[in-house]
Amino acid sequence: ELTMMQGYFETGSYKKQVVFDLFYRKNPSGNGYAIAAGLQQAIEYIRNLRFTEDDIAYLEGLGLFSADFIDYLKDFRFTGEIYAIPEGTVVFPHEPLMRVKAPIVEAQLVETALLNIINHQSLIATKAARVVWAAQGDPVMEFGLRRAQGPDAGTLGARATVIGGCWGTSNVLTGKLYEIPVKGTHSHSWVMSFPDELTAFREYARLFPDACLLLVDTYNTLESGVPNAIKVFKEMQAKGIELKNYGIRLDSGDLAYLSKQAKKMLDEAGFSDAVISASNDLDETLINSLKMQGAAINSWGVGTNLITSKDCPSFGGVYKLAAILDKNTGKFIPKIKLSENAEKITNPGNKTIRRIYDKENGKIIADLICLVDEIYDPDRSLLLFDPIETWKKTHLAPGSYTMRELMIPVFQNGKRVYDSPEVMDIQKYCKQEMSTLWEESLRLEFPHRVHVDLSNELWHMKNQLLDSYHYNR
Amino acid sequence: ELTMMQGYFETGSYKKQVVFDLFYRKNPSGNGYAIAAGLQQAIEYIRNLRFTEDDIAYLEGLGLFSADFIDYLKDFRFTGEIYAIPEGTVVFPHEPLMRVKAPIVEAQLVETALLNIINHQSLIATKAARVVWAAQGDPVMEFGLRRAQGPDAGTLGARATVIGGCWGTSNVLTGKLYEIPVKGTHSHSWVMSFPDELTAFREYARLFPDACLLLVDTYNTLESGVPNAIKVFKEMQAKGIELKNYGIRLDSGDLAYLSKQAKKMLDEAGFSDAVISASNDLDETLINSLKMQGAAINSWGVGTNLITSKDCPSFGGVYKLAAILDKNTGKFIPKIKLSENAEKITNPGNKTIRRIYDKENGKIIADLICLVDEIYDPDRSLLLFDPIETWKKTHLAPGSYTMRELMIPVFQNGKRVYDSPEVMDIQKYCKQEMSTLWEESLRLEFPHRVHVDLSNELWHMKNQLLDSYHYNR
Repeated sequence: ELTMMQGYFETGSYKKQVVFDLFYRKNPSGNGYAIAAGLQQAIEYIRNLRFTEDDIAYLEGLGLFSADFIDYLKDFRFTGEIYAIPEGTVVFPHEPLMRVKAPIVEAQLVETALLNIINHQSLIATKAARVVWAAQGDPVMEFGLRRAQGPDAGTLGARATVIGGCWGTSNVLTGKLYEIPVKGTHSHSWVMSFPDELTAFREYARLFPDACLLLVDTYNTLESGVPNAIKVFKEMQAKGIELKNYGIRLDSGDLAYLSKQAKKMLDEAGFSDAVISASNDLDETLINSLKMQGAAINSWGVGTNLITSKDCPSFGGVYKLAAILDKNTGKFIPKIKLSENAEKITNPGNKTIRRIYDKENGKIIADLICLVDEIYDPDRSLLLFDPIETWKKTHLAPGSYTMRELMIPVFQNGKRVYDSPEVMDIQKYCKQEMSTLWEESLRLEFPHRVHVDLSNELWHMKNQLLDSYHYNR
Repeated sequence: ELTMMQGYFETGSYKKQVVFDLFYRKNPSGNGYAIAAGLQQAIEYIRNLRFTEDDIAYLEGLGLFSADFIDYLKDFRFTGEIYAIPEGTVVFPHEPLMRVKAPIVEAQLVETALLNIINHQSLIATKAARVVWAAQGDPVMEFGLRRAQGPDAGTLGARATVIGGCWGTSNVLTGKLYEIPVKGTHSHSWVMSFPDELTAFREYARLFPDACLLLVDTYNTLESGVPNAIKVFKEMQAKGIELKNYGIRLDSGDLAYLSKQAKKMLDEAGFSDAVISASNDLDETLINSLKMQGAAINSWGVGTNLITSKDCPSFGGVYKLAAILDKNTGKFIPKIKLSENAEKITNPGNKTIRRIYDKENGKIIADLICLVDEIYDPDRSLLLFDPIETWKKTHLAPGSYTMRELMIPVFQNGKRVYDSPEVMDIQKYCKQEMSTLWEESLRLEFPHRVHVDLSNELWHMKNQLLDSYHYNR
C-alpha cells in the first residue's frame, strides 16, 4: 500500500476522490449467508491511524520513499467518508460491506487493515452462527484460544463467536474487553494433580459449588468418571448444598454413546437436571450428527474448528476501486475490473444496498445493489431481475414489501459519526437478523440462495462499461 | 486456567512443583516434520506476565474468585524454569517443544498463552517450509495480511513464514518489528485509477525504476498487459535506465500458459532476465504442479493459503502434566494421562530429547525422548527400538553417530536466560536444520517418517504406569 501511496503522491493525483468497495464473493463453509463483523475494530483502526516517529524513522531507513512523501506521512490522518453495514447483519456475496470515499492515497492505505479485520471477524461470526444453529438452542461456549492463530485471533475471534450467537467464552481477556460472559472449568491436569479422581472432584465441588462441572474422562468415563461425579453430587446434596449449574463434561470417546449412558446413570441417581456438556473437536457437522443420534448433550464447548473456521479459514473479502470523482463535472466516473471469470467482474459506481422484505412475514425477499442516489418508494411496484439470467423477473406489488437501507454512515470528513453497540447487543440484533431468513437459507448444506440483484440503472451502467472494452488483434 | 489456579490456591497445593510438557501429536498438512516457532513471543509473554490493577478489578467484579486469591494475583510473577527447543528447529510429534517446571498454579496459568503462541507460529513456519520447498529455490514472498485471522495472525504469521524460508513479506509492520525484507508492488486499483494501462505502467516505472514489477492482468494479460509492460521496459532502456529487479506479475488466469507465453514475448523483446512473478491462491501443491508443467515463473507471491495454513489451520499442540515433585523424597513422580486412543497417552516424567545424527552425512537417524538425567556416550553403542512395535530395533555402533541435546534453558528461577536470535538468523538456522533431513522426509506427500523413540528407562516407566491402572467392575 505504501509504494502505491507514494506513487499517487508523486503523480500529484493523491487527492483525487475515489470510492472503494469492500465486498466478498462467496459465503464461507458453503453457508447461505454471512454475518458482518469487525466494524468496531475497523473504526478504532481508522481513528488511530497515524505514523509515529518510530514508524517514520523505519520507513526513511528503507530507502524506498522520497523525503516529500515521508513529510506527508508525518501528518497523515484519514479525512474521508465511510459507510458500512452494521455488525451482526446478515449479508450476501457482492454486497459492499464497507464503502470508503476518500482521497485515493488515504483510501489505498486503509485497504489491508480493513480487509484483515472485516475478513477475520465476519468469517468467525459466520462459522459461529452455523455452530449455534446446529446446537438447536443449547448453549455453545467458545473454547478455542489455545488453537487460535495468534493472540488477536483468539480474543477478537471470541468476540466474533459471541456476535454469531455463542453463549460465552473461556477467553477472559475477551470477557473483560467486551463485557461477555466468561466461564471456566477444569482440565485433565486438575484431576491428575490429585492422588485420585474422587479427591479431585471433591475439591472442585468444595471450591466451586455453584459451577460444578466435572470432567469425567481422565481415566474411564463410565467406570470411574461418572460414578465419582455422582458420588460427589450426592455428598453435596447431603451437605444441604443446592445443586444448580452442575453436571459433567465429556471430552473424548463416542459422545453419542457416552452421553446417553451418562444421562441414564445421572437420571437414576436423581440428577436429571445435570448439565451434560461435550467438547473434543466439535463443529456444526458433528453437533448436527450428535443431535440426530439423540445424544443426551445439552451444552457444547467448541474450540479449534470454530476459532479457526477449520473447513474454510479465510473469508475472501476484497477491496476494489468502484468510482473516481471527475473534478470538472463533480460526478463520479464508474470504474470496473474485468476478468475472464464473470464472478470476478466488479460492480462499478458509488453504490449502496436496499434490503427488500416481505411486508407480511418480515422475511428477506432480495437485496438490491443500487446507486446511492436512486430513490425507491415501497408504495409503488418494483420489478426485480436476475443480473445474469435477466429473464428471471419478480414483480413486487405496491405495498407488499418494505425496504431498508443497509449501509450507515460511520465516518464523515474523517470524524467518527457512529458508536458501536455493546457486543451482547450486537448478538441480540444478529439473532433478530437471522430470523429474517427463511429456514431453507439457514440450513448447513445446500442452503437456498438469497437473491442479490442489481438495480436497473446499475445493471445498465455495468453492461455499458463491459461493452466498451475490446481489444484489437 | 484462573478457576483452576484458584482451586490449587485454595487447596493449599499451589506451590507444589510440577512439570508440564508442550508437545503435538501430528505434523500439519501431512508433512514429515514441523518447524518450531514462536519462542521469542512466548518469552515476552512470560516476562510481562502480571495482573494490572485493571485486570484485578475486572476479576474481582466477576464474583468468581476469593479475596485471598485476588490478593495473591496482585503480586503474581512467573518464578519457574522453562526449557525449549530453539525456533527454526525441525521437530517431530510427541517431542516436548517446551517444558515448564514451576509451582502448579504458575504452570497452569501459562498453558493457554504458550499453546496459542507456539501452535500458531509453528503451524505457519511449517506451512512456509512446504511452500518454499515446492518453489525449488525461487524466492517466495508472503502476501497474506489481508486474509490473515486478525492483525497478530498477519504480523506474527509473516514472521513465522520468514523463519520457514520466505524471502520477505508485504507486511511492513512485520518488516519493522523483526528486521525482515519488505517488498511492495501495485494492485489492480493502481491501473484502474489511470486513464489507461500504459499510462499506469509508465508512471509506476518512473517512480520505481529499481523495483518495477508490473501487474499485467487488469484488462487482458497477453493482449494488453504484457505488450504494455514491454513497451515501458523499452522506454526505460531508451532513457538509459539500467533494468534490474524488473518484470511482471500474473495474478489470474492459467498461470502455466500465461507465464510461458509472457516469457516468450519478453525473451523476443530482449528481456529474458525479467522477473515473472505469480500470485493468486497459490499453495505448495499448485506451485509444485506449475513447476512440473514447466511454468516460466521465477518468483512467487503466496497469500491466503500460507498465512492461514488453509488445508490445516491449526497445529494441535497440547500441554500436559508430566510429573509432580514429591516433597518428601525430592524426586519427581511421573504422571500419565490415559486414553482409549494409544496416540493420546502421554509420556510421563521429566524429559528431554537427544537427537541422533549419522556421523558421516549429518542426517538425523532418530530422536530419543529420555529422562533429563540419563547419560549417553556416543563412543558407546546404542540400541534404539520402536516404542510400539518393540521388536523393531536399530543398533548404532560406537562412534558411528553424534548426539545433540535439543532443549535449552530459557527461564531459570523466573529469570530469562536466553536471547532470541534475529529472525533472519533463525531463517538461516532453519535452512541448516532442513538439510539434516533426508530428501524423502522433505517431500510434500507421504514423507518418510523420522523415528521418535523412547529411551529404555522412559519406556519402562511408561509401561509400568500403564500396567498399574485397572478398574474393578
